Amino acid sequence: MPAQLSEADRLGLETAYLEAKRGYEEGGIPIGSCLVHHGESGKPKVLGKGCNMRVQKESATLHGEISALENTGRLKAGVYRGSTIYTTLSPCIMCTGAILLYRFPRVVIGENRNYVGGEELLKKNGVEVVVVDDERCKELMERFIREKPEIWYEDIGEETPK
Amino acid sequence: MPAQLSEADRLGLETAYLEAKRGYEEGGIPIGSCLVHHGESGKPKVLGKGCNMRVQKESATLHGEISALENTGRLKAGVYRGSTIYTTLSPCIMCTGAILLYRFPRVVIGENRNYVGGEELLKKNGVEVVVVDDERCKELMERFIREKPEIWYEDIGEETPK
Repeated sequence: MPAQLSEADRLGLETAYLEAKRGYEEGGIPIGSCLVHHGESGKPKVLGKGCNMRVQKESATLHGEISALENTGRLKAGVYRGSTIYTTLSPCIMCTGAILLYRFPRVVIGENRNYVGGEELLKKNGVEVVVVDDERCKELMERFIREKPEIWYEDIGEETPK
Repeated sequence: MPAQLSEADRLGLETAYLEAKRGYEEGGIPIGSCLVHHGESGKPKVLGKGCNMRVQKESATLHGEISALENTGRLKAGVYRGSTIYTTLSPCIMCTGAILLYRFPRVVIGENRNYVGGEELLKKNGVEVVVVDDERCKELMERFIREKPEIWYEDIGEETPK
């Protein structure tokens, strides 16, 4: 993890990674996410977290970010706008849309080597996008894609390559 | 409802509307959705349906379309690509992203007078967008926004206008 990450970023990325790891250990797709709010005190607070639940809940919509948003529950618009969303993998277009809907000002992405989602659309809409290029996130995701490619491709709406 | 709607479109829109109506009767946001697959026999089949569950499940992600996708469960990529998604209201950017993720070729929208979501992004990505301008969908949504504006604005990540 690059040394220049703030305390909040270390907390957010570590929380997201642990969610991804938990997902992997449950037999699921190892993508984790969390929301960190920057309170008035300046102390970062994890509002909620989650991991991809395609396998565990037979879910077509609970990607890491959607899962984190769902587990966090209902919030007023202003809370999202004072928060950063962390995700271990570049957000797909659905999760990109969720980030834009709630107008998060900033997204921190563990890695985008295994998949590149809607980063350009986020930037075009004024969202700050930080890609950490984290080794642990990369290795975990790469391992899953190698082990269970058909589940991974299903998750991104694609046919498994022959 | 315009006379030129096909049998599949009438089925899809009616199913989505009944979901919206059910949501309203449960005290929720009246937006409904469903997926209709066009099988080889040519006979349309409703794969799944759902309505916005913000109120009923305290959910930040179960918009009408996400709810329909979630209730439908896991599908192979090809099934989405042979289906139409119906929604009573123009899809927000999160639901637009979900439609793009799964590459639905076609979206049928009950109305877009009360809200306009990501229609342009859908078209730009080659999705056929049909807006029916259905009176029942419009009236039900308009009534809800008038009755519970703070819940509606929360649902689209905005502050309630003063």
